[in-house]
Amino acid sequence: MARRLAILAGAGALPVALAKAQPEALRIVFDGVAHDLPAPVEPHRFEALGGLFEALERAGVADVVLAGSMSRPPLDPERFDPLMRDLAPRLLAAMQGGDDALLRLVISLFEERGFKVLGAHEVLPDLVCGGGLIGGPTPSAQAETDASRGADILLALSPLDIGQACVVAAGLCLGIETLQGTDALLRFVADTPAALRRGRGVLVKAPKRGQDLRIDMPAIGPETVHGAARAGLEGIVIAAGRVLVLERAATLAALRDTGLFLQAKVL
Amino acid sequence: MARRLAILAGAGALPVALAKAQPEALRIVFDGVAHDLPAPVEPHRFEALGGLFEALERAGVADVVLAGSMSRPPLDPERFDPLMRDLAPRLLAAMQGGDDALLRLVISLFEERGFKVLGAHEVLPDLVCGGGLIGGPTPSAQAETDASRGADILLALSPLDIGQACVVAAGLCLGIETLQGTDALLRFVADTPAALRRGRGVLVKAPKRGQDLRIDMPAIGPETVHGAARAGLEGIVIAAGRVLVLERAATLAALRDTGLFLQAKVL
Repeated sequence: MARRLAILAGAGALPVALAKAQPEALRIVFDGVAHDLPAPVEPHRFEALGGLFEALERAGVADVVLAGSMSRPPLDPERFDPLMRDLAPRLLAAMQGGDDALLRLVISLFEERGFKVLGAHEVLPDLVCGGGLIGGPTPSAQAETDASRGADILLALSPLDIGQACVVAAGLCLGIETLQGTDALLRFVADTPAALRRGRGVLVKAPKRGQDLRIDMPAIGPETVHGAARAGLEGIVIAAGRVLVLERAATLAALRDTGLFLQAKVL
Repeated sequence: MARRLAILAGAGALPVALAKAQPEALRIVFDGVAHDLPAPVEPHRFEALGGLFEALERAGVADVVLAGSMSRPPLDPERFDPLMRDLAPRLLAAMQGGDDALLRLVISLFEERGFKVLGAHEVLPDLVCGGGLIGGPTPSAQAETDASRGADILLALSPLDIGQACVVAAGLCLGIETLQGTDALLRFVADTPAALRRGRGVLVKAPKRGQDLRIDMPAIGPETVHGAARAGLEGIVIAAGRVLVLERAATLAALRDTGLFLQAKVL
């Protein structure tokens, strides 16, 4: 019997792509967390993690993949099941750190229970790109220089559990991604007064060094391309093999529509 | 005869405070650069740096202080005087770097010509604060922890010539200052969806490590306090002795009005 997969789904196109590629997979969604999965989905609550574990075990699930964006929903301690009550001190400690600390804890909890936690790129390897130009025109020399400075910025922030994206234009850093995500970063850059800008610039996106790619793997899609275009950028540079490209066809179409480039580089 | 000072003024309250403290100082402003100085001011053009040097020398100026915010005005090479034409290669090289590279060049040019370049805090020492609570309530323990994480973030970015401010709330980084400045950072933080936030947070402001404080010294004022309040923050932490507090009385009044704290710490 094949190992059964469960997709623990947040919002966005990634869980949908995974569900399409793995039609036998169990689709788990969470109360208070938006998702875009078609039925059948099985709703659970974060407060009842013990119940989720038991349901997965009853369904014969051996592998799980966490996919899609999950804004941290408020947890109601009144509704904690016994497992969650036991975990409360570890949860509290992890919540003091960045997002990664919390996600690392979630992975550990599944592993301690005996599940194997996969990355989306392990379930569907087509989601990542090797090095090279993926679409659009050849990047300018300035874009190459800016991408290199952007990679340096992300590397410097990496030990602090921040920064999977930044924007550099003609040597000037116009924005660094924080909790609010890439779309908010691009809106911020789009609002930069023209007098402060000295060139078009690039969005650089890469996972933190040493990041567990099974959680919070950086991703781009057509909306990223359109956001970068609205921010006046020349293109997007992603870390080869370590950034998901969602909705590939629509992303390529967005590159054609906007004239932006998308390049994967070893960062 | 006393050494004469020239204030090279951009926008904001700092040049005004310096001119008030040093009424004999020459007040230099620049075409295309906003300023708030009362008359008498002497207008110059960046394109005619040689002419500025000669005017300062004729007026008996020995010391200069650069003060106020100057957004980079577009330079018109057609109007360059001979000195600026000679400097063009160095200017071009410096403009590829961050703001600091350009400002370091400007300082060098004045020094090579024989002027002494002072920091605003050397002209008016009351502008900076020693360690301690400057105004408002005692910071919470969480604010202390957040300030420490903010200082770590600024330190990591320091070698890259970015980041004189950031916002951390309950361990989560909500924003890092880039070219657009502190007010833009605070507006970005104010727009953070409430669901993503886990605490009030602090604005941390400090110069880059090893930064020449005669240029681009970080500053706060009443508008910073109001911006931080609109961003929902608990208070502001500045590096003791290395961040200017402009309009002290109005800043203290803003702290009283908003209930925020302002603390200087050795960062």
